[in-house]
Amino acid sequence: MQMMDAAVFTGPGRIALERKPVPQAGPGEAVVKVTMTTICGTDVHILKGEYPVQPGLTIGHEPVGVIAELGAGVAGYEIGQRVVVGAITPCGQCHSCLEAHQSQCGGHAMGGWRFGNTIDGCQAEYVRVPFAMANLAPIPDGLSDEQVLMCPDIMSTGFGGAENGGIRIGDTVAVFAQGPIGLCATAGARLRGASRIIAVDTVPERLAMARTLGADHVIDFRQTDPVDEILRLTDGRGADVTIEALGTQQTFESCLRALRPGGTLSSLGVYSGKLSLPLDAFAAGLGDHKIITTLCPGGKHRMQRLMNTLASGRLDLRLLVTHRFPLARIEEAYALFASQTDGVLKVAIVP
Amino acid sequence: MQMMDAAVFTGPGRIALERKPVPQAGPGEAVVKVTMTTICGTDVHILKGEYPVQPGLTIGHEPVGVIAELGAGVAGYEIGQRVVVGAITPCGQCHSCLEAHQSQCGGHAMGGWRFGNTIDGCQAEYVRVPFAMANLAPIPDGLSDEQVLMCPDIMSTGFGGAENGGIRIGDTVAVFAQGPIGLCATAGARLRGASRIIAVDTVPERLAMARTLGADHVIDFRQTDPVDEILRLTDGRGADVTIEALGTQQTFESCLRALRPGGTLSSLGVYSGKLSLPLDAFAAGLGDHKIITTLCPGGKHRMQRLMNTLASGRLDLRLLVTHRFPLARIEEAYALFASQTDGVLKVAIVP
Amino acid sequence: MQMMDAAVFTGPGRIALERKPVPQAGPGEAVVKVTMTTICGTDVHILKGEYPVQPGLTIGHEPVGVIAELGAGVAGYEIGQRVVVGAITPCGQCHSCLEAHQSQCGGHAMGGWRFGNTIDGCQAEYVRVPFAMANLAPIPDGLSDEQVLMCPDIMSTGFGGAENGGIRIGDTVAVFAQGPIGLCATAGARLRGASRIIAVDTVPERLAMARTLGADHVIDFRQTDPVDEILRLTDGRGADVTIEALGTQQTFESCLRALRPGGTLSSLGVYSGKLSLPLDAFAAGLGDHKIITTLCPGGKHRMQRLMNTLASGRLDLRLLVTHRFPLARIEEAYALFASQTDGVLKVAIVP
Amino acid sequence: MQMMDAAVFTGPGRIALERKPVPQAGPGEAVVKVTMTTICGTDVHILKGEYPVQPGLTIGHEPVGVIAELGAGVAGYEIGQRVVVGAITPCGQCHSCLEAHQSQCGGHAMGGWRFGNTIDGCQAEYVRVPFAMANLAPIPDGLSDEQVLMCPDIMSTGFGGAENGGIRIGDTVAVFAQGPIGLCATAGARLRGASRIIAVDTVPERLAMARTLGADHVIDFRQTDPVDEILRLTDGRGADVTIEALGTQQTFESCLRALRPGGTLSSLGVYSGKLSLPLDAFAAGLGDHKIITTLCPGGKHRMQRLMNTLASGRLDLRLLVTHRFPLARIEEAYALFASQTDGVLKVAIVP
Repeated sequence: MQMMDAAVFTGPGRIALERKPVPQAGPGEAVVKVTMTTICGTDVHILKGEYPVQPGLTIGHEPVGVIAELGAGVAGYEIGQRVVVGAITPCGQCHSCLEAHQSQCGGHAMGGWRFGNTIDGCQAEYVRVPFAMANLAPIPDGLSDEQVLMCPDIMSTGFGGAENGGIRIGDTVAVFAQGPIGLCATAGARLRGASRIIAVDTVPERLAMARTLGADHVIDFRQTDPVDEILRLTDGRGADVTIEALGTQQTFESCLRALRPGGTLSSLGVYSGKLSLPLDAFAAGLGDHKIITTLCPGGKHRMQRLMNTLASGRLDLRLLVTHRFPLARIEEAYALFASQTDGVLKVAIVP
Repeated sequence: MQMMDAAVFTGPGRIALERKPVPQAGPGEAVVKVTMTTICGTDVHILKGEYPVQPGLTIGHEPVGVIAELGAGVAGYEIGQRVVVGAITPCGQCHSCLEAHQSQCGGHAMGGWRFGNTIDGCQAEYVRVPFAMANLAPIPDGLSDEQVLMCPDIMSTGFGGAENGGIRIGDTVAVFAQGPIGLCATAGARLRGASRIIAVDTVPERLAMARTLGADHVIDFRQTDPVDEILRLTDGRGADVTIEALGTQQTFESCLRALRPGGTLSSLGVYSGKLSLPLDAFAAGLGDHKIITTLCPGGKHRMQRLMNTLASGRLDLRLLVTHRFPLARIEEAYALFASQTDGVLKVAIVP
Repeated sequence: MQMMDAAVFTGPGRIALERKPVPQAGPGEAVVKVTMTTICGTDVHILKGEYPVQPGLTIGHEPVGVIAELGAGVAGYEIGQRVVVGAITPCGQCHSCLEAHQSQCGGHAMGGWRFGNTIDGCQAEYVRVPFAMANLAPIPDGLSDEQVLMCPDIMSTGFGGAENGGIRIGDTVAVFAQGPIGLCATAGARLRGASRIIAVDTVPERLAMARTLGADHVIDFRQTDPVDEILRLTDGRGADVTIEALGTQQTFESCLRALRPGGTLSSLGVYSGKLSLPLDAFAAGLGDHKIITTLCPGGKHRMQRLMNTLASGRLDLRLLVTHRFPLARIEEAYALFASQTDGVLKVAIVP
Repeated sequence: MQMMDAAVFTGPGRIALERKPVPQAGPGEAVVKVTMTTICGTDVHILKGEYPVQPGLTIGHEPVGVIAELGAGVAGYEIGQRVVVGAITPCGQCHSCLEAHQSQCGGHAMGGWRFGNTIDGCQAEYVRVPFAMANLAPIPDGLSDEQVLMCPDIMSTGFGGAENGGIRIGDTVAVFAQGPIGLCATAGARLRGASRIIAVDTVPERLAMARTLGADHVIDFRQTDPVDEILRLTDGRGADVTIEALGTQQTFESCLRALRPGGTLSSLGVYSGKLSLPLDAFAAGLGDHKIITTLCPGGKHRMQRLMNTLASGRLDLRLLVTHRFPLARIEEAYALFASQTDGVLKVAIVP
């Protein structure tokens, strides 16, 4: 039996590199040799034991790699082909998928999120891909691993926040928090035609990156109250769309306070603790507000669209990759990423 | 100066019948002689002093009547014509109206709600109608005042809840609370093609009326846990759409708990106190849920569509009118309506 | 090798009952023992040689039956289970399916239509079902074969015409032609909340059936010009939505002439010959018109929704089944159905 | 009576500068002193007598100017304020406007197009603006007349084509014809997130301008068959959205032939003669195609959104203004514009 290295959740507080058998492809599945992957904020929640993952599971849901094996019934692909696979791997054939709720595959909340959650993930040398026909997305020639590394989750989620906000040409959009996902929401708002994009954070590098990716205004919330400033910029009206990209009561509430009547709060954050709706900002339920939550859209078609966007030069998300580690040093990478020091945005992991 | 009777908010706890001058129509306005009106739950909130209305204002926002005067520039109507006017009276010409957020007219939360809120209302012999060209809706021949009495608010709001829920043919829809608005949401869900409509309340007459108006199942929440029952009926999946028609933490929360991943919570209630989002039911923000709030759609076109529906015999909302009072006895009507006794649903007030 | 009877297209003008091997289920496939099926207008086009189908193919795309065999990887079903399968059998995993264009599966026009078109159909004792996980829809207890016989095509297509027309509560909808699909479009318009439904045909039984299924007005086009009458009924404005359910220049053109500016022409017909857009009715391209075409939506989720609608008693489509034949007499059934005599709407075929 | 110069349609083949009284503002109206306007392709159709306009009418529907007079009831504006007014001037209060079909104001096809069509237009020193509250859009400081000159029609129409095409991030969009409106459709497709934009024309300056405004590929249809090339670029699949911006059978048909199944043909052209739908490209009506036509969206909110886009520096449409004329030489400007010589795209007319 061929063995490989894999980053395994061994219990709260510990992700360790272990030896595991290389997976094999069953019918409809594929095995991908991982050439690059990355660490997500959710992985840090798992590491901290805040998310219910079984000890022993390989972590990671953002694979870039090369097809190593194709199971029975998987056609139209070749061994050796470079592919991206989304963090969410819909089956395409259940009721939820057939009604275009692929992220909720199987009808269960977050059911489409399998990698590093309910099946072994991709912070390893190899990863088994379920429902391969629906999920293997060939990488266009000319795009490097690092160029497409944000596709599986960060770019798909951030763009999803902009898309589901229903942004129209000429809209004012405010994006609260400029971590990797918020930055992609900012970029997505730009791509959808917002004419005034306001990015909120406090880390100077992140605010600078927000400008690079499309923000017209940046607000350091430690220096300026973002709600006041957004209302000021919009003559008291509020933003047409606000995007929450952190997952805290404060940012959620600010998104509602900075929103105009009839506007949309597009929520991307993973919340913990309690979440309440301030009734004054919510117009007691009479403001024609919309609150839309989005889990990372997946599937090969989504991945292809995102790669189309990168291939056309609309934006370059290599900017988000601030650090690089070999898989062997992934514990170090987790420590850096969790500490949010050294200007870290995303770390590339190379098996 | 011609005088008239009007039900006036004189301060917390008191709505009194007073003598006031008959209003006159300025440019773009009309005066309508009220032939029938009704009392809304919101009026009771005003009566109790829970809603910020200026003492001295005439209350009421559900007018049915006859055109008594047309101001300069109001064309296409005749004195004596029977009309309905929506509770919400959009101007049609501000930024919010031009982008189809008429209820938020002027860009202010609830800005389109003027009658009995920011200008004199219609629990009076006459009412002045602002932006008459956008708001006077002629009543089709053959429809009585009582048949159209629910159009200005109850039917428009309840149907709005069903419409904004995005109901599709074959959907399961649960409606929490079967007061007049909830009953209209139930009827609206039926009109939009839901195949399984579940109505929740505890008052036997309301549950019976829910069945009459289109519910397939009714749940008495004092006897059966509605969330459990909805999950049971949907094989654990949850409803596609849940409609909140009361305005409490409990019903809002139940709406979320009874909702499938990817589903829509359509909220109609006016909330007070605190409102929180239970994170387990909200999938920590990752369930692709939508929460949509709706303030009563207004304007003459909306009224015409609702009257079309009544004229075609799709449903008969006279069923909701359980009591009738002359305007002179409106204080008595308020007492009955506020007490929710004697099987009261809606009271018709005839000046 | 087990043999069965099958209705085979042998060449223009001839569909003959032949002996063929019973199919076997490959990976991801199922074999269904057909207990009831029917003949579609499209089958008559095939019979006449007007549609490019390979001689030797078994015809028919509307199967109701019992699972006889499940291929590798098909889980969650049991042999002997009663199922409906849609006329369109999407794979669920290609780019088109993943972006919710299942009828255009594979990216080819009509790519999802396989039965009796590119693979053997179901006018036979057994039919092989591709992509079984996405397409086998269990029949709810209490619904007979005849009750669900319209689901695979007629009901799905007709309802699709109403759904894609974007009907709103209070709309006026005109449906041109009241064959089985037009009748289902009429029923669908009713289910979506149209308040005035105008059905156009000339066969008295069809106009009567249109009334039964939801039409408020019927127009016999041999007695009354339908465009004039629709304009008269709408005070010259035109219908909000018109549905074409025949596939001729005349009905298409009438749909456009009877449509209001800003309205939607929802097209279901299969056109042949030439099709032109009358520029006066089309406002030279400046009328904000929409023309939407719909190919029968398929997949198990669609089928389930349709069966939900039937199970809830919203409508009873057994009314459309006017004749019944054993499979052995299918050639006779074709002759009757093609002749449109004896009040035939749909014929049930029982293998 | 104060007199002014105005370009008047005097009969087929003739637009002449005449002296007319300066208009006066009635209730709800305003008079704008025109500081810049331009000539539209539609004006040339009028000039040629191809469009039914009454002799004696002042032509022109693209005004930029300064408020000279405000009629009774027009509030929130000041004399001397710089404003843009859309080519389409909706009333905001009729049934069509209240259901968001402002271009079809009054329920008549093109009913919102009044300037230079049913009332005096703006190729004059002054223009009377109907429904001023809904139509006067203040120009943000820092934008010159020439910067906003495309807002009233060209930019609004071209962007409308992109918006109504339902473009998604990652889409392939082809725009047929790169006149001023097609160029704005190209720019609009870019703003909505299309990742591959293909512009078709034959004039080298226009193809170069298309690249400047956002096209990724340009096709000279005299050198390369555009349908073949689009199919080649999309691996035979076709574009997700095609935009027709000329108004001929050939471009319309090419748009359909270059479109993928399930795609949208967004039509902006004004067609004359005959228009037919090629049934092979239309999949005989079974391709789930959409054809959407758009008349220039108007109203002050639309104008504000467009100006927001310009103010934020997203694009600079001064590039389209190739020539400038004083009003006194407008006949010369018409001759140039109609001849399409000297690289003319749009001419600025300064009264």
